[in-house]
Order: sequence, then structure tokens, then C-alpha cells
Amino acid sequence: MTDNATASARELATRFWATANAADWPAFAALLDPELVYEVPQTRERVCGRAAMTEFFRTWPGSWQVELLQLIADEKSAVTVFDFVTPSEPRMRGITLFAVEAGLITKLTDYWPEDYEPPARATAVVQRY
Amino acid sequence: MTDNATASARELATRFWATANAADWPAFAALLDPELVYEVPQTRERVCGRAAMTEFFRTWPGSWQVELLQLIADEKSAVTVFDFVTPSEPRMRGITLFAVEAGLITKLTDYWPEDYEPPARATAVVQRY
Repeated sequence: MTDNATASARELATRFWATANAADWPAFAALLDPELVYEVPQTRERVCGRAAMTEFFRTWPGSWQVELLQLIADEKSAVTVFDFVTPSEPRMRGITLFAVEAGLITKLTDYWPEDYEPPARATAVVQRY
Repeated sequence: MTDNATASARELATRFWATANAADWPAFAALLDPELVYEVPQTRERVCGRAAMTEFFRTWPGSWQVELLQLIADEKSAVTVFDFVTPSEPRMRGITLFAVEAGLITKLTDYWPEDYEPPARATAVVQRY
């Protein structure tokens, strides 16, 4: 276990992706509360507990890396915006919300926003790029 | 113009949705940098400038309200997670990232993650709820 009893939400979110990218699963697990809950509201998927969460990431198929684009954090929470990168698939944008308590991650909420065709807009001020 | 020269990212994000929900467009516009850029990466849509941004929200069809679910903020940025609520359509989850400088919102990035069917998972630890 790393010494993260006083780690901030910013530090925990940074280490979460650093250890996942390194596939350092003992260091990854050490960041997680034993009762952590992970949820994906878009699919209504849930993973409960430190061991299950580590297993979920450890067994994710294929090789993958997360490229962190943005990190916003306050005292008890953080959000990371990232690209999920594999050798074969297009990049996927991901957003993860972190809740932390006493130097451990207690809750993770993942969002995976996909490209879509926009509706007709009521005003011409909206451009495409 | 409201006196927001020293407003924090947290205050600006809070006022952004409060003034939008109130359809108070002068107060809404007063939060925005004249050169603000708004982007939706999923649709590659962009709105440039305070006047255009205010016009975009002011002309959004129908009646709508944003129910704020979560706000995370640090010194120069904030994120809001919210439900976009109308009388007729299902709720839509939205995520907005704010960048602020000198008491004004300079950049907005919107994500609209939609429900989807999850892929087969490599481990049984993932439950549905």
C-alpha cells in the first residue's frame, strides 16, 4: 500500500490513471476504498469493491492507455477528461468523476460521450468545425 | 453587468445555470467573456462570442430547465453535471466544462453522453442496475 492517507482528490485522480497506464495493479488497488462503487450511468453498469474494480481494469481486453486531457479537482472530488487509446480502435473520449474520502477513492462515475449528428439549430450562430 | 470581477469558477458556473434557468439573458451575458468560445466535441459545433452564445441559449426551442447534479471547481475551471429537463422529452444528462479568467467565462465545452448497450465484459464483476 502506498502512503496516501493524506492524498488530495487531485493526487488520487492523477495516480489512478498513472497506475492504470502502468498496469501496476497493486498500486492501483491501494488508491481505492475497499467499498468503492464504480458506475456507468449510460449502460447502468456497476462494479462494487476494490478487488472487483481492480479485476475489471486488469482484465480489460487488449492493450490500452489513457491520455489525460484535463483534470479539475476540489477538496473531495475530481473530474478527468481523457482519450482512451488502443492500437486498433478510434480514440474514445471519456470523463471520470471521482469522490474521495480519507485519502481513498470511494466513488467513480464514468461517461463515454460518442459523436452524433447535431439537430437543426434555431439560430445561425452555431458553426461546425 | 453584475459585479463579478472577482467571481470564482464555482460562482460563475453556479450563476451560469441560475441565469439560464431564469431566462435572465442580460445577467447571463454578463458572466461571459466577449471572446468566449463554446464547443461540443461530439458534433463539432462551435459558437464564438458573448452575443452569439447568449443568442444560442435564448433561442433554444421550447421551455427547458437545467437541474444541477454536481459541481466541481478549482481556481480556473469548473465542471457541472446536470439533467436537461423539458416538459415533453426524456431527461438528458449533460456535462459542461468551464474555463474562467478575471471573473468571466472564457471557454465552455459541452458533452451529452447518451445511453448505450454495453459490450460483453471480460469479467463477471460488472453488474447491471
